[in-house]
Amino acid sequence: MGYQYWSHETLHKLCTEAFLKFGFSERDTSIITDVLLTSDFNGVESHGVQRLARYHQNIKKGIIRVDAKAETVFETPVSAVIDGHDGMGQVIAYNAMKLAIEKAEKSGIAMVTVRNSNHYGIAGYYAKMAAKEGLMGISCTNTNPIMVPTHGKRAMLGTNPIGIAIPAEPYDFYFDSSTTVVTRGKLEVYNKLGYPMPSCWAVDEKGQGCSDAGRVLANIAAHRGGGILPLGGDNETTGGHKGYGWAMVCEIFSSIISMGTTSNETGKDGRGQISHGFAAINPAIFGDAEAIKKHLSDYLEKLRTSPLADGAERIYTHGEKEALAGDRIIKDGIPVNDNTMIEIMDLCTDIGLDFSEYFGDYTPPESGFKGNPI
Amino acid sequence: MGYQYWSHETLHKLCTEAFLKFGFSERDTSIITDVLLTSDFNGVESHGVQRLARYHQNIKKGIIRVDAKAETVFETPVSAVIDGHDGMGQVIAYNAMKLAIEKAEKSGIAMVTVRNSNHYGIAGYYAKMAAKEGLMGISCTNTNPIMVPTHGKRAMLGTNPIGIAIPAEPYDFYFDSSTTVVTRGKLEVYNKLGYPMPSCWAVDEKGQGCSDAGRVLANIAAHRGGGILPLGGDNETTGGHKGYGWAMVCEIFSSIISMGTTSNETGKDGRGQISHGFAAINPAIFGDAEAIKKHLSDYLEKLRTSPLADGAERIYTHGEKEALAGDRIIKDGIPVNDNTMIEIMDLCTDIGLDFSEYFGDYTPPESGFKGNPI
Repeated sequence: MGYQYWSHETLHKLCTEAFLKFGFSERDTSIITDVLLTSDFNGVESHGVQRLARYHQNIKKGIIRVDAKAETVFETPVSAVIDGHDGMGQVIAYNAMKLAIEKAEKSGIAMVTVRNSNHYGIAGYYAKMAAKEGLMGISCTNTNPIMVPTHGKRAMLGTNPIGIAIPAEPYDFYFDSSTTVVTRGKLEVYNKLGYPMPSCWAVDEKGQGCSDAGRVLANIAAHRGGGILPLGGDNETTGGHKGYGWAMVCEIFSSIISMGTTSNETGKDGRGQISHGFAAINPAIFGDAEAIKKHLSDYLEKLRTSPLADGAERIYTHGEKEALAGDRIIKDGIPVNDNTMIEIMDLCTDIGLDFSEYFGDYTPPESGFKGNPI
Repeated sequence: MGYQYWSHETLHKLCTEAFLKFGFSERDTSIITDVLLTSDFNGVESHGVQRLARYHQNIKKGIIRVDAKAETVFETPVSAVIDGHDGMGQVIAYNAMKLAIEKAEKSGIAMVTVRNSNHYGIAGYYAKMAAKEGLMGISCTNTNPIMVPTHGKRAMLGTNPIGIAIPAEPYDFYFDSSTTVVTRGKLEVYNKLGYPMPSCWAVDEKGQGCSDAGRVLANIAAHRGGGILPLGGDNETTGGHKGYGWAMVCEIFSSIISMGTTSNETGKDGRGQISHGFAAINPAIFGDAEAIKKHLSDYLEKLRTSPLADGAERIYTHGEKEALAGDRIIKDGIPVNDNTMIEIMDLCTDIGLDFSEYFGDYTPPESGFKGNPI
């Protein structure tokens, strides 16, 4: 069996007690736990509970500083620049988006940008914070270098995801997407399974399309060149320069305007040096917010019910898959793969938590996950 | 010979006199002419002088109303909603972006959204207006329906381009891109030449990948189904849902927040019903605007000089190709294809201009352009 299913309560209790043990305050622990579990609820395993061990490692290495106090270094009624001083990405990002929302509620629009932070989980979480308040939200982050620019062979940009959430019924429009063709997680899965990748996903150390995920990952780790391609692939015929452009937009609204570290220079000197960007917009600055919400909801419904391509099963609008994943998880529990369960057992031993208190007499297998990814 | 090269002065004089003849004021004529010629200078022939005859047709049909007075129907210090009342897209868009710039200069950020307009030319022109004032500019527009949503077979979105300009040296970052894999113009060229298209560009009336450009274009014209695919292609493996997401973002910031007409409903009742969105952001709301500009310029230079993929010739940053096209055109003139020259000759006859006053004793061939596109 590759996956175990656990209740939200079980994993919430585990995360809460782990982050408290790491030294975070109750408030910060609650924020981090919610970001991780929301990712699992959205069906995005890569940014959920499976990150717990990696965050723990980065805290032990001093890359993430538990005691960091983020500082607002510049501010206007519609903007702020925050220096995260190497704190936990989720906490810094949550507070930054909260500030953007407060400012947008007063001024109509606001942008907050952050430097010297760390991995913040799913970009969309923070965009959704705005949507929950009836605002339109945007969130983006740069990352460690992994994307090659069109015609290049050195990773100069991150996966550079952008998340956008706009109030609508019955689901918010929720678009959370890396600007690469795929994320590193997808390469890791192909590597684990030994499957060849589509060669439009990544390039080798010479900048040539490569279907060997293991080789691409090893090259990236050893800084030998190569990386993942922008959305649109490796050439301009299929629009690779457009994905590269969107990655640049993410970079500009995170690392550039915050005077932070661009993706290509991050992760040096034992620091994360990640930058984020946030925006909140009150739809009431365009008139009747409820009418705008209805206009969007009607259009989304027209898209979902428009004629299907022959052989296709369903047209989704953005945010629908996440809502469906949440429904599934309420019924079945959160799937956690064996590798992660092994990591969690080790983590519990390391920080003095009783694994069986959360997972009863379940014992993970000796070797990790080899099955098909969910 | 497929192309003739003409000086900026020649085509400027032609456009100016034509738009005055159509009934536009001197100010409006000057705006429209500048948008068209800037497109040609950027190397984007499809949105340049070659549109002259199509605009004339739309004016004659009453789709574009020369005497329309755009109206600001809602306004705050950081926003405005404009009803274009079916006027000329370029004029409405220019005034809307000017308003966004004025508001951003006072408030730091501003967004202006427009409904009931017409085709406005290149999206990037208006973004660049902001960059010329030292601001960051964003511009987007919906269009007539041409893009199918992922897994669909009816065109429900437009090409939905987004243009973004951010001050930098020696070229501004300038990213102007449809959210489709390619634009309709590219299909028209393949159709004209009789070449098969890559099948990841468009789908037929059944929603299946199709390499016959003529068939796709005929289907679109007859509303038989099919259309161009989003950036990322026809499936989620290559990120088609991401291009579809960006097209939605364009739609939201143009037709949705303006309470305008979504792409799928445009072009009815003899009207254009096109919507636009504009934003301007003063970088000084994040601190030292000059330092931010230098930070971006340095990063762009690092991208351009990063290692080339084996066999590649150059890594571009966004805005560089447009600058190079401009240099070429200053030297060689603006290329105008034979089809367009035939149209211009007919136009001159129709509105009472002397073709030879602009083009001397040059006579276009009887049948149009058949050569390779530039």
